[in-house]
Amino acid sequence: MRLRKKMWAGPWIDDHADLVVTQKRATDMKGKWAGLFAKEQPIHIEVGTGKGQFIVGMAKKYPDTNFIGMEIQESAVAVAARKADEDEDDLPNLKFIYGDGAGVDTYFEKGEVAKVFLNFSDPWPKSRHETRRLTYKSFLEGYEAILPEGGELEFKTDNRGLFEYSLYSFAQYGITFLPNGISLDLHADEDKMVDNVETEYEQKFSERGFPIYKFQGAFKKAAK
Amino acid sequence: MRLRKKMWAGPWIDDHADLVVTQKRATDMKGKWAGLFAKEQPIHIEVGTGKGQFIVGMAKKYPDTNFIGMEIQESAVAVAARKADEDEDDLPNLKFIYGDGAGVDTYFEKGEVAKVFLNFSDPWPKSRHETRRLTYKSFLEGYEAILPEGGELEFKTDNRGLFEYSLYSFAQYGITFLPNGISLDLHADEDKMVDNVETEYEQKFSERGFPIYKFQGAFKKAAK
Repeated sequence: MRLRKKMWAGPWIDDHADLVVTQKRATDMKGKWAGLFAKEQPIHIEVGTGKGQFIVGMAKKYPDTNFIGMEIQESAVAVAARKADEDEDDLPNLKFIYGDGAGVDTYFEKGEVAKVFLNFSDPWPKSRHETRRLTYKSFLEGYEAILPEGGELEFKTDNRGLFEYSLYSFAQYGITFLPNGISLDLHADEDKMVDNVETEYEQKFSERGFPIYKFQGAFKKAAK
Repeated sequence: MRLRKKMWAGPWIDDHADLVVTQKRATDMKGKWAGLFAKEQPIHIEVGTGKGQFIVGMAKKYPDTNFIGMEIQESAVAVAARKADEDEDDLPNLKFIYGDGAGVDTYFEKGEVAKVFLNFSDPWPKSRHETRRLTYKSFLEGYEAILPEGGELEFKTDNRGLFEYSLYSFAQYGITFLPNGISLDLHADEDKMVDNVETEYEQKFSERGFPIYKFQGAFKKAAK
């Protein structure tokens, strides 16, 4: 969903260059992201981080992982980064990229990212917009290009059509399910809810009784 | 679900040997099923045909296909076959096997069956019963052994746990999705409902508002 344009967003991003990396700078950071964080530890990214509830929650819950939230909308990335900035905890393990998900392989080297999260991505329901879906083949190529062999992908959505499409797209691409790696009603799955960090949409839609779908998979290792 | 034992079932099956083939005879029929039907045309089977609403509906709707409903419960297969026998239409394209789904490759030759249907199979939710689920690896091996290369499998259920498990099992086995081959709420999918033939369970559970899950896949062709 597109946020209303926030006039403060551009200047705020400029003032917080330590927290929000713009597209141009992100390209220069390729291969050097470890140096941006307080500690050198695995980097997980969320593509399409929206207003940031998920990535902020993850950074708080998992201090031994470095997180990067990527977002193409200026107003959204500013809201997300401000949420991190104003949090009661210091979050030295969280950064943002104000940039395009189609460009992940221009920002990161092969293996620089340990895991990719996609949450409640825009469904682009019309067939002619298939190529814009974050689970379309060309995006999957991008994720594969920055993950190590066997790198993992997690995807949550409330959108049935997008989830059905994505399962097909993952299977076609050769992304394998992890055991117990699919839930068709996440909030009814007690075992999986223990570790669940909600997004804004997830909270809203699960409260209304809609099922939340979740997929956990891994890019197949190359045959030896 | 187990039906209450019907005392008439055994004698009825004996009296209708043209319609219901027992396990012993089914083994003798291996490679010769085409001769049992009025017309030689592709054979589709349903493993676990229950009370037969689906397979009778299919036989009525698709006269150019031969159908076989397999069922391990004597009372259920008798109810199903009687339903076919008493139908207003003659159904020369429908037979039943009173036998075990684990034995499909003792009944049929490779390629003798063009398509396998599984509908609302017993979920066997406990992990220690995994091997009894009709989508467990050993059953998939059986289906593959009787289908041609690239042969198709269709599966419907209202049971979320069984569907999640089965998607994983299919993926592990190398059964590929057909395009648009998954529905997570079949009765909300207008396009797919046009050709849908309901089972007894499906009718009951969809009326109560539960989603019906459907998978359409194909066994991968061997690499050339």
